[in-house]
Amino acid sequence: MTNSRHVVLARRPQGHPVPTDFDVRARALPALPEGRLLVQVLYATANPGSRNRLSGQASYARGMELGETMEGPAVGRVVESRNPDFHAGDLVAGPFGWAEHVQVSGRGLRRLPPDTPSISAWAGILSIPGLTGYFGVRDVGAAKAGETVLISSAAGPVGATAGQVARLMGCRVIGIASGADKLRWLREVAGLDMVVDRAGAGTADELAARIAAVAPDGVDIYFDNVGGPTLDAAIAHLRPKGRIVVSGQISDYNTPPEARYGTRRVYDFIGKRLRMEGMVVFDFADRFEEATTAMTTWIRDGRLAFKEHIEEGLDTLPGLFCAQLRGEIFGRALARLAP
Amino acid sequence: MTNSRHVVLARRPQGHPVPTDFDVRARALPALPEGRLLVQVLYATANPGSRNRLSGQASYARGMELGETMEGPAVGRVVESRNPDFHAGDLVAGPFGWAEHVQVSGRGLRRLPPDTPSISAWAGILSIPGLTGYFGVRDVGAAKAGETVLISSAAGPVGATAGQVARLMGCRVIGIASGADKLRWLREVAGLDMVVDRAGAGTADELAARIAAVAPDGVDIYFDNVGGPTLDAAIAHLRPKGRIVVSGQISDYNTPPEARYGTRRVYDFIGKRLRMEGMVVFDFADRFEEATTAMTTWIRDGRLAFKEHIEEGLDTLPGLFCAQLRGEIFGRALARLAP
Repeated sequence: MTNSRHVVLARRPQGHPVPTDFDVRARALPALPEGRLLVQVLYATANPGSRNRLSGQASYARGMELGETMEGPAVGRVVESRNPDFHAGDLVAGPFGWAEHVQVSGRGLRRLPPDTPSISAWAGILSIPGLTGYFGVRDVGAAKAGETVLISSAAGPVGATAGQVARLMGCRVIGIASGADKLRWLREVAGLDMVVDRAGAGTADELAARIAAVAPDGVDIYFDNVGGPTLDAAIAHLRPKGRIVVSGQISDYNTPPEARYGTRRVYDFIGKRLRMEGMVVFDFADRFEEATTAMTTWIRDGRLAFKEHIEEGLDTLPGLFCAQLRGEIFGRALARLAP
Repeated sequence: MTNSRHVVLARRPQGHPVPTDFDVRARALPALPEGRLLVQVLYATANPGSRNRLSGQASYARGMELGETMEGPAVGRVVESRNPDFHAGDLVAGPFGWAEHVQVSGRGLRRLPPDTPSISAWAGILSIPGLTGYFGVRDVGAAKAGETVLISSAAGPVGATAGQVARLMGCRVIGIASGADKLRWLREVAGLDMVVDRAGAGTADELAARIAAVAPDGVDIYFDNVGGPTLDAAIAHLRPKGRIVVSGQISDYNTPPEARYGTRRVYDFIGKRLRMEGMVVFDFADRFEEATTAMTTWIRDGRLAFKEHIEEGLDTLPGLFCAQLRGEIFGRALARLAP
């Protein structure tokens, strides 16, 4: 029998989640049933998109129950297999959540290629956030070479992928982020054309002035990970026929619907013929392999950078998740559960 | 020489326009230059879309100058022509504005077919508002047979056209309007499937409850003429992959950008993969004839109804325009300037 620890939702967060909203528990896993695999998780993620499911009123996924194991994309190694499609030693990516070991059917798992340039990337840039950036820029935003693309939370895993994919498509890319470290990384490592410092620009007008300074002719696409006044500043600077990709609204995750900011600028949609579209990356599931193949090549060639923040052990996940929602983590927030 | 009266913008409106923001003036038109036509205006319009240009900060059209003749679509008869393409007696539709006679080049004018079922319709349902409804539902909203379409300000000329075109395309149509007269007209004359009374439903939640009562399974398309809390109520009831056509935001026309309502519900765009798109009907100018041909046939066959509010004489236009922006006019607001 395998003893395994996991983290459950112990309490519904009141506003910003705190580590005591979660509990670490242990259990002995039963003997592996026919058709299933035992996976040892190598990297678990503190995934900001999971915030939404903690309140019991989810948007596209169902709300989580109290006592349920926290969800999240992860990478693991098959330890034992009673499914002929998998063998001990295989590396797999899947929604294993915050657990040291899981028993799964194998359905929906992605198998890591043996020559993958990074294992942890399959819980980050080659998983939900990177795929969201890839399909968001290419398909939802329909970016074309020569266009200007503005991205909020540009140093986060979604934004950084979106920005670099847009550059590889021939776009001019402007990243919005807070703080010297992130801005330097965006310029020097991710190679964005321009950056805008969000820090200290409290209102939409202040931020709009900073965007205008680097993009006096406006932008064609705004890839939105944050919402709030940043969205209004971006709409003010969209060119006619501009598009908004709504990937995330992290500024409104902790807010009940009636108190959310949304946007003041629907009126602008008429004169500028703007288009705003929301996305869920699972709608592109049948093209994930196209994306991971392209991105793996770019990573190997040094044309697609990614930043990770890795802590050690399962117990770090609640604190990492909360810090990450407060914007304190730079890079995809991962916990390494096994070597 | 022809003596002609016209109405100019005398003062920039402070909030809601009032009749004293306008002045009636008279002038003697010069001898008709070579290449131009003299048109006697038969029907001038109090066009709500013109509101936006009065403040000097327009959205897609330039702001009007003080002393400039008020704009607006109109229908007239050619009185004299020094352009070989037109002859005295021709009926033409064009942006003649609030004037009894105009001299124009003929460029961009639409010629009324001799057998047109209505002359005044060319300043209404066969002009900007009707064309906006037609292309908004068909092209921007991409309505498909069997879908449910929700329309605000449904008894107005844009909304009433959008609703009836959607029905002719095989959609189920729900109209939002205020007051028994309009609701009865929508059901009995325009033939909508369901109506929702906006009157007395002050908040988005109250209105959302009324929409839910007639569309418990949600709606696929929301055609928005008004904005404000009505937009939020509609977003709350959109189905996955729902579309919002932003045709007008009349609730925000008199409000400066920072005080506008917009929407609180951008977050909903993610989970439901919503798409919101603004439109300006002039983008479809090369297909206007397709639309007027189809709509003329439907009018003649009794399948497309339209409601007009007609007053007599140029002097009625300022008062009609202001009343119309206060929502007090039922039907396309026209002044008849000549028999």
